[in-house]
Amino acid sequence: MGIHTKVKTDIEIAQEAELKPIKEVAKSIGLEEEDLEFYGKYKAKLSYETLKRLNTKPNGKLILVTSINPTPAGEGKSTVTVGLGDALSQLGKKTMIALREPSLGPTMGIKGGAAGGGYAQVMPMEDINLHFTGDIHAITTANNALAALLDNHIHQGNELRIDPRRIVWKRSLDLNDRALRKIVVGLGGPSQGVPREDGFDITVASEIMAVLCLATDLQDLKRRLSQMVVAYNYDKEPVTAGDLGAEGALTLLLKDALKPNLVQTIEHTPALVHGGPFANIAHGCNSVMATKAALKLADVVVTEAGFGADLGAEKFLNIKTRAAGFQPDAVVIVATIRALKMHGGQGKSELNQENLSALRKGIANLQKHIESIQQFDLPLVVAVNRFITDTENEINELFQWCAEKQIPVALTEVWEKGGKGGLDLAEKVLKVIEQSNHSFRPLYSLEQSLEEKILAIVQSIYGGKGVEFSAKARKQLKEFEENGWSGLPICMAKTQYSLSDDPEKLGRPRDFVIHVRELLPKLGAGFIVALTGDVLTMPGLPKHPAANQMDVDEQGRAIGLF
Amino acid sequence: MGIHTKVKTDIEIAQEAELKPIKEVAKSIGLEEEDLEFYGKYKAKLSYETLKRLNTKPNGKLILVTSINPTPAGEGKSTVTVGLGDALSQLGKKTMIALREPSLGPTMGIKGGAAGGGYAQVMPMEDINLHFTGDIHAITTANNALAALLDNHIHQGNELRIDPRRIVWKRSLDLNDRALRKIVVGLGGPSQGVPREDGFDITVASEIMAVLCLATDLQDLKRRLSQMVVAYNYDKEPVTAGDLGAEGALTLLLKDALKPNLVQTIEHTPALVHGGPFANIAHGCNSVMATKAALKLADVVVTEAGFGADLGAEKFLNIKTRAAGFQPDAVVIVATIRALKMHGGQGKSELNQENLSALRKGIANLQKHIESIQQFDLPLVVAVNRFITDTENEINELFQWCAEKQIPVALTEVWEKGGKGGLDLAEKVLKVIEQSNHSFRPLYSLEQSLEEKILAIVQSIYGGKGVEFSAKARKQLKEFEENGWSGLPICMAKTQYSLSDDPEKLGRPRDFVIHVRELLPKLGAGFIVALTGDVLTMPGLPKHPAANQMDVDEQGRAIGLF
Repeated sequence: MGIHTKVKTDIEIAQEAELKPIKEVAKSIGLEEEDLEFYGKYKAKLSYETLKRLNTKPNGKLILVTSINPTPAGEGKSTVTVGLGDALSQLGKKTMIALREPSLGPTMGIKGGAAGGGYAQVMPMEDINLHFTGDIHAITTANNALAALLDNHIHQGNELRIDPRRIVWKRSLDLNDRALRKIVVGLGGPSQGVPREDGFDITVASEIMAVLCLATDLQDLKRRLSQMVVAYNYDKEPVTAGDLGAEGALTLLLKDALKPNLVQTIEHTPALVHGGPFANIAHGCNSVMATKAALKLADVVVTEAGFGADLGAEKFLNIKTRAAGFQPDAVVIVATIRALKMHGGQGKSELNQENLSALRKGIANLQKHIESIQQFDLPLVVAVNRFITDTENEINELFQWCAEKQIPVALTEVWEKGGKGGLDLAEKVLKVIEQSNHSFRPLYSLEQSLEEKILAIVQSIYGGKGVEFSAKARKQLKEFEENGWSGLPICMAKTQYSLSDDPEKLGRPRDFVIHVRELLPKLGAGFIVALTGDVLTMPGLPKHPAANQMDVDEQGRAIGLF
Repeated sequence: MGIHTKVKTDIEIAQEAELKPIKEVAKSIGLEEEDLEFYGKYKAKLSYETLKRLNTKPNGKLILVTSINPTPAGEGKSTVTVGLGDALSQLGKKTMIALREPSLGPTMGIKGGAAGGGYAQVMPMEDINLHFTGDIHAITTANNALAALLDNHIHQGNELRIDPRRIVWKRSLDLNDRALRKIVVGLGGPSQGVPREDGFDITVASEIMAVLCLATDLQDLKRRLSQMVVAYNYDKEPVTAGDLGAEGALTLLLKDALKPNLVQTIEHTPALVHGGPFANIAHGCNSVMATKAALKLADVVVTEAGFGADLGAEKFLNIKTRAAGFQPDAVVIVATIRALKMHGGQGKSELNQENLSALRKGIANLQKHIESIQQFDLPLVVAVNRFITDTENEINELFQWCAEKQIPVALTEVWEKGGKGGLDLAEKVLKVIEQSNHSFRPLYSLEQSLEEKILAIVQSIYGGKGVEFSAKARKQLKEFEENGWSGLPICMAKTQYSLSDDPEKLGRPRDFVIHVRELLPKLGAGFIVALTGDVLTMPGLPKHPAANQMDVDEQGRAIGLF
């Protein structure tokens, strides 16, 4: 989040911070050295024995951090998540943070990372933003091993009668590489395989990433991997990874990647950083294994979900809670004055100027997300992530609006001040949890039809009036019903910039229709993806990639990572 | 090596073995906990500070293990390497082993691994054969990041005027996947990049793997990465990774992968397992950093080079020694009675039957390799890796031949007996080192022309009568000369099965000509590859891939890995 007036960059702050050995951090939550599998001095995985032992312990309280629809102005959701965790620690609460692992693609493309910012960062920042503990590389390998086994099966006689024109399993790399979006493989004659159209997704868009993040143990992982649909045969029947006999090898490749990674914040709050599925094509939350372990180890856990509340939080509440068997006890909705002003129509270049009428208009976006969370019967607090350009008038305007609506609201300054900048938010969150007489309910029941579930999301969460299915999608609704797949939850793939499927419609659009182009069965992840518009599952590099500024100094430390 | 009469499989032996914590193993060679970066309890990388500190120490003695031309009968070179190391330890020598990291592709394709076998294995075998410490994944990522930067450069305006028809940099994956050998990328219209022919190599064939294995420190790594030729522009001038501004980011991605990995044998002899370049398209030896560190830490170091002595040892002696600044003090040539009989014309299905005349004929292959090593003025010992089917007559025959030629020879049984089965070999190796008045000399001088160097290898090492260059190769000889690249050593890419370029010609063929089809400039690695015949740089999977037998048990342990 680069808009604060700052002297130091994130990486400078990170490199100056003094980390504690991870075994000391682990001790603060009751873990011994033998519970950990070390990756250097400052990273460790939790062992399966430890995770098993923890299972019998009661759960702590779970706080889900989400946000308004993102804008180029920035919201700082990860930063608030980390800062809130540090603030809760400062208040004497035994706290843990559960976050997603960043993908290398965006790191090398545009400046940015997913480990917080300023004095609210997760450390060691360099490692987390590079190879970390190798989880994503393991997923890349498993994803591509499955593709190789599939193409080899066809090449070696195609016993399963796979139709090479109906292969849905793509290859993947954890990079931004537009040239790999649409390719033709198997060229060069009979000894080089069977030619067919193919493509690469970025690894975080691989179904295996979603599977890893929703699996509850190794056996569940294997079961889910086995169910992944990779293609259709000449009778248009689905062919799965299990049909290819691949699930054992894939589970073997992922056996360490499934274990949550323990790290720490700048203020030494323990954090589990594990799994990072896309928030459009997938559900956008860190792993169930990590959140669950955190709930067993700490009294309060702060976690986040990708994009705005219409995507990340909706999926957390309808998909992740069902796979995991736990729910949040409170939700924090992050907003910034700047982003709200953009939602109210102010141009990006004028965001430094006070504009109360744009702010008032833009608050409608926040309001919709508040109403959405309330539909799940969850208590919430609005966190206003303060920027130096916010005026007193603007802040007062927003706070007055919240007071009128009886919505708890807190100003946070965690980027500059770390946990200290989040104390008010922490206190308010603890208060709503204490006073809560809420009882969580998901938005839809799994018994509803796929169409009904999609409509429920569109009407109740997006505020749209209806859904228009393409001819293809309508045909698929019928086919999926026949295949017995209609009991699964829905994973909407929609632009994150608008409540509608038109990224230009900021604020709180109304009376719009959502266009569902196509459905994708993700039977391993356990959801049906509904594609609205084009979803980019392999980003491209910009004209001047961040990679061109990266380097290593004489001591082997990263330069230009942020 | 599956032909012994054995009750237990390699993985069973590995899983029953009791490992020492790696910090204890490290202590036995004078390393403290702060010298190590732990990857779990049984793996660690050596830190740059430690490597720097070691630089001032004197070198131990280096033993290079090589073999006759490999046959389907198996030689067990890695197994002898490990067993010899354990035997030297048993004799009270402060010993280390330096080995290559295995690639996942072959592991998932055909049963097999590169960490020794039986009671002469490097541990933890499961980790080493799966993701290990992530080195190969880092190389895959760096390789493909460079490809993405290259395609992005063309897409964003192509300031360097790269000719998309003359791109030599390929993408890579650490898998066997024939469908990726020849592909077309950039399809789908103007927003998806520029269409062009492309292909994937297995990661161990990437120039970056060779670069990592020949680099002497981080700065040398960066310099080498910068020099890699990735394409030619419309004037046919070379374009390098440095021209794309990629070397900093690639170095950053590889900053941990460059550090050697410390593990142990079943008998707790410390081993550095680091880097694993192909022995055809590249030089086939573990990293210079690892061998160098081992020489600083131990009194005796045992290392190996890929394939037979005509490829691996030749490259070790002409390429690696020049980059590294150290040479072997003795060479061990591994042979088996079975393989020698195959070289003498006996069929694979009849290898269990005694055949003295085939053996006598096949010894010619061993003899050529002995003569080749002698040309470098290095002392050698022949190691006969004993199989249960070898008869007394056969062993006597081979030993008698060695006695006549005054070649030291030892029988090894390290697969069944561990170090104890290699004591005779260890004693004989120590003896030739002690008595040595040899002084190593490489085969050719760098001042010779590329053509002269190739001819020297063909005549002196392969025993051929000459070289035939294709029209293309002849043109390239001239171009490379003009580009100022003729001072580099040669890396021959030839079949490993024969001294000639025809894999069918076993034994000791004579009067043959080597056909050089094409030259590849590997300026980062610092050698010119001479391609003879087709070199497969992306293997395929067999009809029944080993992956289909792989699984994980309830305790998270590997099944079916070997």
